[in-house]
Amino acid sequence: MSPSGTDHLARSRRNRFTAVRLNREVELRDDANWVARMLRNPDTRLVPLWRSRSLLERHADGTLAIYLSPAELAEPDRIQPPTLLGSDGEREYFAVSVTDSQKDSILEYHLQARFADLRRASIDMAAKHAGILAYARALHYWQHRHAFCGVCGEPNLLRSAGHRMVCSNEECARQSFPRIDPAIIVLVTHKDACLLGRNAKWPPGQFSTLAGFVEPGESLEDAVVREVYEEVRVQLHEIRYVSSQPWPFPASAMCGFYAEALDMNNGLSEEVEEARWFTVESLKQAVLGGEVRLSPPVSIAFRLLADWFRNNGGGDLEDLVRKQRAMNVTAPTC
Amino acid sequence: MSPSGTDHLARSRRNRFTAVRLNREVELRDDANWVARMLRNPDTRLVPLWRSRSLLERHADGTLAIYLSPAELAEPDRIQPPTLLGSDGEREYFAVSVTDSQKDSILEYHLQARFADLRRASIDMAAKHAGILAYARALHYWQHRHAFCGVCGEPNLLRSAGHRMVCSNEECARQSFPRIDPAIIVLVTHKDACLLGRNAKWPPGQFSTLAGFVEPGESLEDAVVREVYEEVRVQLHEIRYVSSQPWPFPASAMCGFYAEALDMNNGLSEEVEEARWFTVESLKQAVLGGEVRLSPPVSIAFRLLADWFRNNGGGDLEDLVRKQRAMNVTAPTC
Repeated sequence: MSPSGTDHLARSRRNRFTAVRLNREVELRDDANWVARMLRNPDTRLVPLWRSRSLLERHADGTLAIYLSPAELAEPDRIQPPTLLGSDGEREYFAVSVTDSQKDSILEYHLQARFADLRRASIDMAAKHAGILAYARALHYWQHRHAFCGVCGEPNLLRSAGHRMVCSNEECARQSFPRIDPAIIVLVTHKDACLLGRNAKWPPGQFSTLAGFVEPGESLEDAVVREVYEEVRVQLHEIRYVSSQPWPFPASAMCGFYAEALDMNNGLSEEVEEARWFTVESLKQAVLGGEVRLSPPVSIAFRLLADWFRNNGGGDLEDLVRKQRAMNVTAPTC
Repeated sequence: MSPSGTDHLARSRRNRFTAVRLNREVELRDDANWVARMLRNPDTRLVPLWRSRSLLERHADGTLAIYLSPAELAEPDRIQPPTLLGSDGEREYFAVSVTDSQKDSILEYHLQARFADLRRASIDMAAKHAGILAYARALHYWQHRHAFCGVCGEPNLLRSAGHRMVCSNEECARQSFPRIDPAIIVLVTHKDACLLGRNAKWPPGQFSTLAGFVEPGESLEDAVVREVYEEVRVQLHEIRYVSSQPWPFPASAMCGFYAEALDMNNGLSEEVEEARWFTVESLKQAVLGGEVRLSPPVSIAFRLLADWFRNNGGGDLEDLVRKQRAMNVTAPTC
């Protein structure tokens, strides 16, 4: 199916935001002295987040992640203790939440930078930095959403260099850990055609693979069957796992699948207001004709579709999308 | 690898707790009138949970799930609104949390039943009912852990027939959804041998596959690489997804993999205090000799190992474990 045969690791590494090259230094998270020392080390880099936005600089040849040195941010723990992300072999990275006034002073020194949405900006970023920023964003979101204990309502305290919460109420003392929501995403095929859907909330012409969250008490595979049936009333008889991708918008782990439909009969739902079967040829025409707009190439949705397109003789789907943009037949994807 | 070839759905359905045969009736969860009607319907069955324990009856030929009819439980919403699980085609099932006094009165009418731990009891339960109880337990645990809003600390209110929380503070109004923690579990192999580890907390002689939680900002495959290296210092060069399993102890979705090690060098860690390479023959001897005790057959850990064992000419691993028990060479697994 993919250039890497049956190795799901090689497949997953082609996905965006897979930040495995950072050593997470799990065993050092509870070493408070080491953490404090690293936070004073001038080689350390801080990854600032302001209201879930990342510090970025836009250039003609792509978007850069902007990191701060410890000297550039007084009181990096104004909101909460900095979070150890790990080491790239040369230096440690820490995520820090910044206040409104810290944000203003950062922007005074970084005149070209701005705090912006990572999802859009990551399209033309280097993979390593997109991965670091995605990881920082995921932890920041979790910390923000878990400031109070779910069991007793008292404030939580951040521990383990940002990777563990403990309830401040000593009688409760409940611990919690970063939340990740497993989700499935699936390209449904039947013989030489694939099924793409249009979510009722999307702009006209946008189509993508089907997706949804895994529910308690179901396997990933059960979730594929249920979501596809709920959304487009299609029944599946074969499901193949492809690879996964962290997707911190806000907190998903996307698990990508191919699934073969029993037939081409499909329905619609409140969520999916249009669903269309495409062959490689009809997808080509629909994209070049400006009729169909696809998910951005950083998404696993695009990756699933692009691999299917290539394996069915369609060539490079990214090239096709670039041609679509050059022809200016639709609004830009992002 | 498995009898079902490349179809991960067929593989996953051999795992315990895959409750896909229950129609979850997602589209009816917000229909309060329908939900109230079903809760009065004498055909409806309630799945009681008391302090995370399930109502079970032990018989010589297996364990039965005990359900209640609506007439058997006055005020099923004493703790929180009942949770719609779905329909098996004949009737609706709802999970209900019961108070201490409700528990006592239930046990007065069900003299053979008791509230007990599902994990142990599920070993000899019918798969359908193990799945329903696992699903109920997962939602119950989530509701208990999310009684208060993580953003502002005010009480949460349960909505969507138990599947959605909304903060009671109208200025916050933050929603939350059932939490599931994705985890990886992996059988590491090298040529004709596999690696099993002994967690420092386990009873002597117990060995299993390696496992751990997925962290923010990593793919499932990255998590396999990181966990195996953290736990036993083994480097992997090929990773294959096998299938997944809901594991509500307390809230995991286990994603099962095979991984091939670069070589047989391994180390240990705080978590894994012993790791051993087994061929089919040496595993057979270690099990029959009472030296090694394996995870229970309901776990995906056992499934991964049993498939590897069969595919390498070892035959049926469950048979082997039954022989071990009959010889009484170790304490029972559960």
